[in-house]
Amino acid sequence: MTNTSRSVTLKTRPTGMPSAANFEIITDEVPAPAPGEVVTRTLYLSIDPYMRGRLSDRKSYAAPVQIGEVMTGETVGEVVASADPAFAVGDITVGARGWASHIVSKAKALTKIEPGHAPLSTYLGVLGMPGVTAYTGMTDIGRVKAGETVLISAASGAVGSVAGQLAKRAGARVVGIAGGPDKCLYVQEQLGFDACVDHRAMNLAADIADTCPNGVDVYFENVGGAVQRAAFAALNVFARVIMCGMVAQYNDAEFSDGPNLGFTVAKRVTIQGMLVSDKPARFAEWRALAAPWIADGSFVYRETIVDGLENAPDALAGILAGDNFGKMIVKVA
Amino acid sequence: MTNTSRSVTLKTRPTGMPSAANFEIITDEVPAPAPGEVVTRTLYLSIDPYMRGRLSDRKSYAAPVQIGEVMTGETVGEVVASADPAFAVGDITVGARGWASHIVSKAKALTKIEPGHAPLSTYLGVLGMPGVTAYTGMTDIGRVKAGETVLISAASGAVGSVAGQLAKRAGARVVGIAGGPDKCLYVQEQLGFDACVDHRAMNLAADIADTCPNGVDVYFENVGGAVQRAAFAALNVFARVIMCGMVAQYNDAEFSDGPNLGFTVAKRVTIQGMLVSDKPARFAEWRALAAPWIADGSFVYRETIVDGLENAPDALAGILAGDNFGKMIVKVA
Repeated sequence: MTNTSRSVTLKTRPTGMPSAANFEIITDEVPAPAPGEVVTRTLYLSIDPYMRGRLSDRKSYAAPVQIGEVMTGETVGEVVASADPAFAVGDITVGARGWASHIVSKAKALTKIEPGHAPLSTYLGVLGMPGVTAYTGMTDIGRVKAGETVLISAASGAVGSVAGQLAKRAGARVVGIAGGPDKCLYVQEQLGFDACVDHRAMNLAADIADTCPNGVDVYFENVGGAVQRAAFAALNVFARVIMCGMVAQYNDAEFSDGPNLGFTVAKRVTIQGMLVSDKPARFAEWRALAAPWIADGSFVYRETIVDGLENAPDALAGILAGDNFGKMIVKVA
Repeated sequence: MTNTSRSVTLKTRPTGMPSAANFEIITDEVPAPAPGEVVTRTLYLSIDPYMRGRLSDRKSYAAPVQIGEVMTGETVGEVVASADPAFAVGDITVGARGWASHIVSKAKALTKIEPGHAPLSTYLGVLGMPGVTAYTGMTDIGRVKAGETVLISAASGAVGSVAGQLAKRAGARVVGIAGGPDKCLYVQEQLGFDACVDHRAMNLAADIADTCPNGVDVYFENVGGAVQRAAFAALNVFARVIMCGMVAQYNDAEFSDGPNLGFTVAKRVTIQGMLVSDKPARFAEWRALAAPWIADGSFVYRETIVDGLENAPDALAGILAGDNFGKMIVKVA
């Protein structure tokens, strides 16, 4: 066990797109755990769109990261010191939070991972927070029935790719929206969606109409902006909208107006926001359900793994720009 | 039984506010019922905001009234001829539709009213479509719990007044939004709301904040526009929004943008549209529940009754302008 810990702290609040200049890497000694605490050495760090919200002091559901604080984020780590009987050195865990090489956590915040079931990085993606988000949204809000049409924005992303495959398993027609021909090809060929609309082709309304000839019964919203307007316009009577995120505006200082909501009455639409953190019990439920699908290859996922903690800021900028492909993960050790 | 029937037909589609000039009164012979049909003589005609939508050829949940067609609307009527064993001459019914002195209906479209339980006009208001709308919205979408704060727009209106009294019975703090001091006084003093905000005072955000110090858990939307923006901004985490109508824009040729929906994610808000016509079984349920409250005076309602079928167009203009007070009804005979 090395005695040096590296952490990425917030130096300045970004205006617009964040960059490495907004962060600072500090080194320190690896701390010792107090009773009930565990120290993990970070193996993988998850990079997710919601992190942009933590960089702003705009009021949101979670407090922002303060200047000088270590940036937050899910990790998979290996226990290097434990002052709690539930964890032993060498255990692999998920739940420690921070852009850091070593993290002190309360033992109760950690979940032990049994190695060998799935690659460790998947516990941050398809089997982790994004996967559970998709599962909870589709199950609790989408309530997809066979024969319905499901439209999913950011379809090649960590959440969208899981949501779409779940909708296919439910017997729905599944149409993705993604940025660029490569992602669209992946969504159709690898993820098995019935169709994928390229929002960069600037023909959204017509392309959605063409690929969703029976309209849209469930829309999984990850993007916002023009994509949201086009998707809302295609909704059917009794449609459900899972409001998971609106990444298109996360760098905006002021949020622009949304669509007029009169259609929600005429079409009896439900628009429902969700945060997976409200339903912690779904994590274990989802892992038990999906781990066999990962093991037998019937469930597809894609990760972009960037090497080195110092590259975490650029990785965050990448997902906000839509440059990444699939789940963005930083390999820390 | 007179042999002459009078009907109000649509002459021209209104631009903006409808007026009598958009309609035509035609006279005809009272038709005879075919087998399975019933002819009623209209006693009361209901005038409701949704009717503005039927005057436009804009696509909506129901087909528009065609030029030359009799305008649609709920009525209470007396059976004057029956070719169905379920109804006899003299029966009082609700369910026949039309701005007309005499209406031919399928028997199965009619519900018999037992006279003496409540004034007949209430079957178009507090015990009718608006009352059931409020009941269904508050029950199925609002799911109000004791101690929560409920905000209701168009609070003195046919729907809002019922929604608010139901929320009070559920133990909530209930705040209304209405236009002008007279309506606000009525909402507080007669309907028993805890407070009422006058949207004409042009101080909506601050007035909502003052009257809803713990934020808003349920918002019952009847209005749209600036009222909607102010109400949405006050919503709490896990708030529910009942999208019942947006009367402020019913005369608009183009609908303006709505609020940015990012808050629905951060606050896990549910915005759900409803039409009472989806749940016909709730009518009988509501009447059974509320008729005793009307009889014992514990449930308050207010009607504006206009005399004469020829005044129906002006009555519709009145409710769209917010000039009426409570449920608007035309006494036809």
